[in-house]
Amino acid sequence: MTEPRLLLGIDLGGTSTKLLLETDDGTTVDRAQVATPRGPALADDLVAAVVGFLGGRAVAGAGLTVPGLVDPDGTVLACVNLPWIEGHDLGARLAGVIGAPVRTLNDGEASAGAEALRGAGRGHDDVYVVALGTGIAGKHVVGGTVQRGAHLAAGEIGHLSLDPHGAPCSCGQRGCLETFIGGPHLVRRWHQAGQGRARDAVAAGTDPDPGAQAVVDAARQGDAAARDVAATAVDALAAVLLGVVATLDPGLIVIGGGLAQAEDVIVAPARDAVRRRATFHHVPPVVTAELGPWAGAAGAALAARAVVDDEPAGVLTPST
Amino acid sequence: MTEPRLLLGIDLGGTSTKLLLETDDGTTVDRAQVATPRGPALADDLVAAVVGFLGGRAVAGAGLTVPGLVDPDGTVLACVNLPWIEGHDLGARLAGVIGAPVRTLNDGEASAGAEALRGAGRGHDDVYVVALGTGIAGKHVVGGTVQRGAHLAAGEIGHLSLDPHGAPCSCGQRGCLETFIGGPHLVRRWHQAGQGRARDAVAAGTDPDPGAQAVVDAARQGDAAARDVAATAVDALAAVLLGVVATLDPGLIVIGGGLAQAEDVIVAPARDAVRRRATFHHVPPVVTAELGPWAGAAGAALAARAVVDDEPAGVLTPST
Repeated sequence: MTEPRLLLGIDLGGTSTKLLLETDDGTTVDRAQVATPRGPALADDLVAAVVGFLGGRAVAGAGLTVPGLVDPDGTVLACVNLPWIEGHDLGARLAGVIGAPVRTLNDGEASAGAEALRGAGRGHDDVYVVALGTGIAGKHVVGGTVQRGAHLAAGEIGHLSLDPHGAPCSCGQRGCLETFIGGPHLVRRWHQAGQGRARDAVAAGTDPDPGAQAVVDAARQGDAAARDVAATAVDALAAVLLGVVATLDPGLIVIGGGLAQAEDVIVAPARDAVRRRATFHHVPPVVTAELGPWAGAAGAALAARAVVDDEPAGVLTPST
Repeated sequence: MTEPRLLLGIDLGGTSTKLLLETDDGTTVDRAQVATPRGPALADDLVAAVVGFLGGRAVAGAGLTVPGLVDPDGTVLACVNLPWIEGHDLGARLAGVIGAPVRTLNDGEASAGAEALRGAGRGHDDVYVVALGTGIAGKHVVGGTVQRGAHLAAGEIGHLSLDPHGAPCSCGQRGCLETFIGGPHLVRRWHQAGQGRARDAVAAGTDPDPGAQAVVDAARQGDAAARDVAATAVDALAAVLLGVVATLDPGLIVIGGGLAQAEDVIVAPARDAVRRRATFHHVPPVVTAELGPWAGAAGAALAARAVVDDEPAGVLTPST
């Protein structure tokens, strides 16, 4: 009996990096989380961390996510938070050291692919995965392939404008979905409603996410302004999801990201609002993501399997 | 030297049916247009018309479009204008007579596929084809496959609501794109602007399309109300196209359908408006469709090639 082949998923984040070693059937063999190396030695340090984690275990292939734009050939085209890897093919470098093929891919693509194939989307062929965080992204996973678009830019549903006279958005438009439900905008809206606690949250956090959580918590506790802000956010999300249904007709919608934890305040009301507004639409189930913070590493492991099986870039399904 | 194999495209329309016989490289061998048979004998009469057209010429395969919803197995699920074929597998019937495989597909899918692969989209791998007529549809053709959605319902961009307080739409929502640019709505808006000529056009035509053309003609001639109606329609179209760009990131947008003939009044202003509104977007070229009324038959011939080459339903690219 031969040893099962091992696949390595590396989820390179802006602050921490997750390493996941699994067998071909998806069973976790080992995992670890390390601080993401920063500075010009990032690549050297990352390779050293991977080699240390493997401790001599041979892998058949690896997937490597980066929080940025990745050319299908593996070159990192843009990575605002880790600029040292821009223009480099980190995967090729790593492949030379571990002696196995490496596929580099966008982190959101990896997370969405994992959620579609192994998380809440298991068994569905056509899944739309929405990430609700500081920004909002949507990835359409069809037949195990994340739809990337002609310029690798598909899924910017956070920047669908719902109100041309609405709040200014970082993208230069006004009234985008992000201005209703993006974490910092939730806090801003609550703040503008004049709540002292909201002001405190803004003052306290450099990271806007705790702020968004504060809005959710306040809504749960009956804070009227927080409930209004959440209701407006849910309406905007429902309008966009209904547009996704009309345009793409997905078989399932999965809501992930930090705000997806707020099932009672965000996900359930959005699900209800989509159903209430629908007319001719085939409204699919709207469910919460399941994989949590290890989704990216799981997607990287799927990409590892795909590169070993010689699948084209973007395909995450096992070829079997 | 062997004879090149022949492929048959049949575009079954609500009033007329087009027959196109071509060689494997897409060269037209013969074509004809006949009145669409109506009534319970539709299938018999259509088969007879096809046999008569072929006149003994053997085909390797055929594609058959229907103006309705087609199950991937070939059964016509819904066909409002030709109800006699609902629930039937017209393609299987035809296959038995011509002794070659037949693939049945939706007519819009066929036209869009042909436009993407052989028309204005030639050489592009990722094309969004918009049909502007009485209704509005968008078909995303990626790698030679028309994206159908989980319930065969993708592409309902005519029913993206731009204004929840806008005009009632046939779909039950308000302020949909169709209420701004759908042919009958263009006429309605012009009519409501109080123009006598618009009232005449409405009175004259049972088919709303000449009405839409009358609005376009009036706008060209400087009619202020018609220009306003067209400008509002163009704005709505641009908003939706920009949303398509953000969501799908297509490599090319092709505008077809009757109103696409109005390059000066509709297509060029929409192209300009999309560019003007874009911020982060990768705006692709926005071009006019090229194939005209034979697009559906050309798409049917592509489906014929696909079924002969054993491609899965939905794939239209030649396997070579």
